[in-house]
Amino acid sequence: MSVERVLLTHGGGGRMARSLIENIVSTFDNPALNRMEDASPIDIPAGVGEPLKKRSAGAVAQWQPRIVMTTDSFVVTPLFFPGGDIGKLSVCGTVNDLATAGAVPAALSVGLIIEEGFPVSDLERVLSSMKKTADSVPVPLVTGDTKVVEKGRGDGVYISTAGIGAVRPGIELSPARIEEGDAVLISGPIGNHEASVLSARNDLSLGVQIESDCAPLSGLMQAVIEVVPEAKCARDPTRGGVAAVLCELAESAGCTILLDEETIPIDEPVQGLCDILGLDPLQMANEGKMIVIVPGSKVQTGLEAMKSVYVGRNSVKIGEVQKGAGRLIMKTPYGTSRIITMPVGNQLPRIC
Amino acid sequence: MSVERVLLTHGGGGRMARSLIENIVSTFDNPALNRMEDASPIDIPAGVGEPLKKRSAGAVAQWQPRIVMTTDSFVVTPLFFPGGDIGKLSVCGTVNDLATAGAVPAALSVGLIIEEGFPVSDLERVLSSMKKTADSVPVPLVTGDTKVVEKGRGDGVYISTAGIGAVRPGIELSPARIEEGDAVLISGPIGNHEASVLSARNDLSLGVQIESDCAPLSGLMQAVIEVVPEAKCARDPTRGGVAAVLCELAESAGCTILLDEETIPIDEPVQGLCDILGLDPLQMANEGKMIVIVPGSKVQTGLEAMKSVYVGRNSVKIGEVQKGAGRLIMKTPYGTSRIITMPVGNQLPRIC
Repeated sequence: MSVERVLLTHGGGGRMARSLIENIVSTFDNPALNRMEDASPIDIPAGVGEPLKKRSAGAVAQWQPRIVMTTDSFVVTPLFFPGGDIGKLSVCGTVNDLATAGAVPAALSVGLIIEEGFPVSDLERVLSSMKKTADSVPVPLVTGDTKVVEKGRGDGVYISTAGIGAVRPGIELSPARIEEGDAVLISGPIGNHEASVLSARNDLSLGVQIESDCAPLSGLMQAVIEVVPEAKCARDPTRGGVAAVLCELAESAGCTILLDEETIPIDEPVQGLCDILGLDPLQMANEGKMIVIVPGSKVQTGLEAMKSVYVGRNSVKIGEVQKGAGRLIMKTPYGTSRIITMPVGNQLPRIC
Repeated sequence: MSVERVLLTHGGGGRMARSLIENIVSTFDNPALNRMEDASPIDIPAGVGEPLKKRSAGAVAQWQPRIVMTTDSFVVTPLFFPGGDIGKLSVCGTVNDLATAGAVPAALSVGLIIEEGFPVSDLERVLSSMKKTADSVPVPLVTGDTKVVEKGRGDGVYISTAGIGAVRPGIELSPARIEEGDAVLISGPIGNHEASVLSARNDLSLGVQIESDCAPLSGLMQAVIEVVPEAKCARDPTRGGVAAVLCELAESAGCTILLDEETIPIDEPVQGLCDILGLDPLQMANEGKMIVIVPGSKVQTGLEAMKSVYVGRNSVKIGEVQKGAGRLIMKTPYGTSRIITMPVGNQLPRIC
């Protein structure tokens, strides 16, 4: 673009707005978006209409994928942090919400609320990060909108993404299906995203740099579903962390979830940061981790599938579902156990 | 809710966030949203899979509606203005973008970015306005997200809505289809939304209160398509007004669009406000008007369909498409004509 900073007039409907939008469109460059229509056509990914293990020419027309929709707004500060930025985050968050439904992402939309004076170079950096992440899924960004607010009425840029995905017939991930005997798997160590943002925000010198785990997980979920189509439920533990997600699932399912503290993977620098600041890693936000609940008999198959994808290489089983009254219980290495309750607020505002 | 103002902790992932979200979910109360999943199932409205005038039992399975997606962010100030508020606007804007594609709205999502300290009563007012407007379409709000930013990093509430719609087979609204001999129809008088926001913002005492035209137009577009399936293109003239939309269409289509100034409907108070402040009504934003381009032979049929819907009761023909080099030309009542160029910026920031 020919200017260095976003101006209020870029938020209008005229030539300047169009130049901003053309700049954005050229970053993402796909047929649906390039049309620059107010509403963009969606292609449902080929093959999703067929149920797993039932692929036959005659059956195709009988099956329709279910369409699911999700949205997330992103207000993370700082906008750039080790391992990611608000652009990457805004694609991962929405793709991962689709993944929790077992969906193959079909399309994303983006709404930008830009603060007057925001450097165009930062905007371009954020957009190309979105593009790179979306391409890695892959999912096209098919439509978008930009608004500009006065200086002091925003904070650089806020991003809202919405996503559409398609779910294969026969896949039904839902907390209602969780039952006694199921196992709780997680795709890797927890707390890295929140620890990364926390250190970046406060300019903490910790000796080591903690990177956000920020990553799209739809590929990991598709790998699981391919071999364990009977998987029960999946959740990405973002705000409120593993504690919030599992408290909610235990309550919805009306079962006890028993976590084994020794098995919960936490990277050493994250644990160190938590120890110093008195934070609970179980409540720390993740942006590239998936909790998958599978039948007890499918633990090995599920873990192998998760580990076959790079972002899931450190997947482990961390707990079991038992009969009970909807509680989350942690078994400590000392043989004792304690009830974990739903976090009340958040440890750190604006982590995503 | 049990508190009067939104707190930063309402943006976390814990119990307080959940209470805020439950409050929102209970406002909209539909099966997809009530599941409170990260990604919500979408039902494509029944019948949209069948092409018009080709309905027969055997043909149904052969036809699929096209799915389209759109998004918009809303930062209007003030949040409440005569004839609407940011909640109503956020539903209308997205529904109307779907309508420009000829789509029947299937689902909406909402992302709220709330400023710390925002009165909960105002939030509830905005949400119930969204609900009322969505019900009138009707379209379910199936998924959402809330974030809270510190005081001074927002302005009350910003709303991002995304929408999915389904387009009947055979309907293809696109600027590329515009050609010589087509007619330009508009669903009523222009400029009311921007005039309403402008007077509300500046507390102008004009003697009369100008109400925003803010309204969902998917019903109007369906009425047109039912009788004029060969309609060429539709646009809602929001930011940049009729001038921006028609300049863009003339350019895309590579035709001249000739407007007849005498036929362009403008309410007297809006014209008065424009005269006093030196604003061009043609550049004023509308939030409840649709420009529809139809073949010249279908003007009467199209207008009758538009007028059959209450929001289109004042529909008129305002122009014609002629051979030419992609320009918008206005014929004045004095027999002269002038070229109208794309507005550069905007007359008023944050009108939507």
